[in-house]
Amino acid sequence: MAKEETGNKKTPISDLGKINAQNRLFEGSGYTNKEAIKFNESRDTQAVTVSKLLLEGIDFDLVYHPLKHLGYKSALLALGSIYANNYYPKILYYNVGLSARFYFEDIRQLWEGVLAAAKEHGIEQLGLDLTSSMTGLSIAVSASGEQASEVMKNLPKPDRHSLLCITGNVGAAYMGLHVLEREKAAFSKIPAAEADQYIQPDLSKYKYLLSQLLSPEINPKMLDRFKEDGLYPAAGYFITRGLAYTVKQLCQDTGLGARIYLDKIPIASQTFEMAEELNIDAITAALNGGDDYKFLFVIPLDKHERFHKEFPDMDIIGHLTGPEDGAVLVTPEGAGLELKAPGW
Amino acid sequence: MAKEETGNKKTPISDLGKINAQNRLFEGSGYTNKEAIKFNESRDTQAVTVSKLLLEGIDFDLVYHPLKHLGYKSALLALGSIYANNYYPKILYYNVGLSARFYFEDIRQLWEGVLAAAKEHGIEQLGLDLTSSMTGLSIAVSASGEQASEVMKNLPKPDRHSLLCITGNVGAAYMGLHVLEREKAAFSKIPAAEADQYIQPDLSKYKYLLSQLLSPEINPKMLDRFKEDGLYPAAGYFITRGLAYTVKQLCQDTGLGARIYLDKIPIASQTFEMAEELNIDAITAALNGGDDYKFLFVIPLDKHERFHKEFPDMDIIGHLTGPEDGAVLVTPEGAGLELKAPGW
Repeated sequence: MAKEETGNKKTPISDLGKINAQNRLFEGSGYTNKEAIKFNESRDTQAVTVSKLLLEGIDFDLVYHPLKHLGYKSALLALGSIYANNYYPKILYYNVGLSARFYFEDIRQLWEGVLAAAKEHGIEQLGLDLTSSMTGLSIAVSASGEQASEVMKNLPKPDRHSLLCITGNVGAAYMGLHVLEREKAAFSKIPAAEADQYIQPDLSKYKYLLSQLLSPEINPKMLDRFKEDGLYPAAGYFITRGLAYTVKQLCQDTGLGARIYLDKIPIASQTFEMAEELNIDAITAALNGGDDYKFLFVIPLDKHERFHKEFPDMDIIGHLTGPEDGAVLVTPEGAGLELKAPGW
Repeated sequence: MAKEETGNKKTPISDLGKINAQNRLFEGSGYTNKEAIKFNESRDTQAVTVSKLLLEGIDFDLVYHPLKHLGYKSALLALGSIYANNYYPKILYYNVGLSARFYFEDIRQLWEGVLAAAKEHGIEQLGLDLTSSMTGLSIAVSASGEQASEVMKNLPKPDRHSLLCITGNVGAAYMGLHVLEREKAAFSKIPAAEADQYIQPDLSKYKYLLSQLLSPEINPKMLDRFKEDGLYPAAGYFITRGLAYTVKQLCQDTGLGARIYLDKIPIASQTFEMAEELNIDAITAALNGGDDYKFLFVIPLDKHERFHKEFPDMDIIGHLTGPEDGAVLVTPEGAGLELKAPGW
């Protein structure tokens, strides 16, 4: 962040004034900044709203998280929850707290990432309020979405026979994080006098893991596929705090139990390889690693075959059960272990 | 915050687990915690959403801001924007970032304040997500509101003859802040060994100023009064960053200018007295102090007499003008000064 880093002149936000800074960030974006965002009037829609808070040092580390990627990813964090609930995102609102070490050019990078996500995902209204922070960068992001009432009224209900599907592998982002933490630790051991000569290590062999952490993606056409096929999930979750956390959340929300099968959980080969290299348990990464940015969907049992045919990219990892079972992980040997997740 | 302070045992949130802590906070509240909050956009209503971010050390100081009051006030910050835009608040959502120095009992106090505000203001859906923070307390609060489409469609439009009204005096909260800052500075000069014997000074003479800062209120019937009288403002703002900031925002939003008259701006006698005692300019406090939690409404000129009769508690402080005028403060001598506000 420091002025010296880029060699380019950087502009303190106080030089511009925050309103002027905000106005510049919206210039040419096609959006008008607003404090109170009014929903467009429509007759037959339902709306949903979600809010997320990302704090520096907890949710991201700017040593290795480029600001533009962070802006993009922070938008997906909110948009993912909207999609998971079967709504189309329409509104995105940011409150960004900044300490004095951030310059206008830094925020412009962050905002470029936000704008890219907003455009890709059809956001119609966007808002930003910059505020001061004592320490570091704080990002509060809210999103609202809409869906036809007709669709929401006719959604299937989760029951004790519903299947659990996942839209991709889990644990890779967590492994990406460990790659970067290792490099950061190695760099910190270099004497300050030699830091200038430090050559960034070749991380290209970890490209997949790093991309899962730093630049996850969501297919903006996801809901359209459900619509075309007339196959809507009974419930959906955006997996950001680990698969186990999400399954436990699902059990609490539905009042049901769940069984997921260890050998059905998709884990990338790179995740296994890296887990071995770093001596980390790949299963723990997959269940509790977090930051996966994949979806968990609840599918009615009687739609099973059609789902399987229309969505071959989704993996069935288990099913709901009665509430007496709780959230259970079934091992390949058939043993049932209680699912554990931080926070529960 | 420290364990020793109260003498009572305090519970680390990690002992409970965050989900368990959240569940306890909702017990008996009449609300169910949800991550994604759904609402109907029926044929006849329109919706609005606002988000605010409050950071420790910038927006509040826990040395003198009791957590329960802070919870209440943080809710009003979001609710005030909803009311100002002529919507009834229905949904409140909190993301709270906590460092390890906060215990469950602290958050329960904060949450009691939030619940009190939620109930007073008819909130139907409430959500909370507790997260970790490296440093201090971060509060992100979002609110959504609804209003009959019929009402929103028929609102008057602001024009260059509209009047500017304010719902109470400004500058008092800022003076309250200075009273507390003075006491904090005095306390910090006491040697540590004598701090135990420190007798809290009698602040009762500053009661009004302190209440404006620490426990502002909004009349939840405010919009009902507009409705009964069929007198809706053409625009509204919740004044939290200073009157001057708000007037400049109004000018930017409407593309018009504004003139406010210094001798019409309501300032409490206590504010003048305290300003003299502390050698602070009372006018600066009134224009730029912030945290006022009063409303600025734009009233159509032709409704002037009816407003004056039905809302005698509102003061007319100026009027809109053409865009060429900008935002102007008119002195008692008739001179027009450009309004200045931090951030602009």
